Amino acid sequence: MSRLDSAIRRLQAQKAALEDAARRTAGLRGLVLEFGLGNGRTYDHLRTILSNRRIVVFDRQVAAHPDCIPPDEDLYLGDLFKTLPRAIAELGRSAVIAHLDIGTGNKDQSVALVTRAAPMIADLLASGAILVSDQPIESIAGLIPLPLPDGIADGRIHMLQRT
Amino acid sequence: MSRLDSAIRRLQAQKAALEDAARRTAGLRGLVLEFGLGNGRTYDHLRTILSNRRIVVFDRQVAAHPDCIPPDEDLYLGDLFKTLPRAIAELGRSAVIAHLDIGTGNKDQSVALVTRAAPMIADLLASGAILVSDQPIESIAGLIPLPLPDGIADGRIHMLQRT
Repeated sequence: MSRLDSAIRRLQAQKAALEDAARRTAGLRGLVLEFGLGNGRTYDHLRTILSNRRIVVFDRQVAAHPDCIPPDEDLYLGDLFKTLPRAIAELGRSAVIAHLDIGTGNKDQSVALVTRAAPMIADLLASGAILVSDQPIESIAGLIPLPLPDGIADGRIHMLQRT
Repeated sequence: MSRLDSAIRRLQAQKAALEDAARRTAGLRGLVLEFGLGNGRTYDHLRTILSNRRIVVFDRQVAAHPDCIPPDEDLYLGDLFKTLPRAIAELGRSAVIAHLDIGTGNKDQSVALVTRAAPMIADLLASGAILVSDQPIESIAGLIPLPLPDGIADGRIHMLQRT
């Protein structure tokens, strides 16, 4: 498969998974967490499909399109392992969706980063919350894997739900 | 439409247009020109669907994924208005497909760049060749607009054919 085909499928998987997570959590109160703002593409999608929810964004720095920069009060900027403990203290288990797109470009590094961060991110999830991740996530106590939406190939994206 | 939706449609339009151009020119002899290597995504697609054709690539510098770097002899690196005259002298009207993805991030600048480059690029096109461009292209003598493939919205990509 060419990198163009792969990019299309990756973005389609993100879109389908985020929209599925939005539907599944529609009856819950809480906020949305975006880990990895990047160019702001999925942040823009989240604020479009979840316009009534607060979206809190984590990244090393802001490098997004000017139209896609969250308000200061919704940004945790800097090293994830410094901002996560602060977010846990400030926000608690208040998120109904967390989207992880924190790849570094290096597959092994990205998996290691997500493996280390995921248990802390799980501490921000309300009961019934859904975690969507581009990278695979090892089993975490209290989270169970979800089936992917129709038409999305296994491994293209990953979804887990807090029981 | 969110930037995620827009990105998906842009990549789908590139894929559909390049594959349509490949089908329409299947009976012609000649090479493929890629203007703007970027991360190498569409270059990778072109070499996948047109594995028997030489693909000549133009860009300011190489910043592609290591797997998607063309061989040196197929690269014209540097300012387009210096490399284009050299390519016209060396290659003549030998291309059956030209793909332009040379946006600068600024819409007006990108359109101006394409408007200036397109007539020179047209001088590299064989009879029947197809030009695919992310940016709109003013009418150029000898080139007529083509209808887009099914399902691709007007303006998402542009196709012209040398008569």
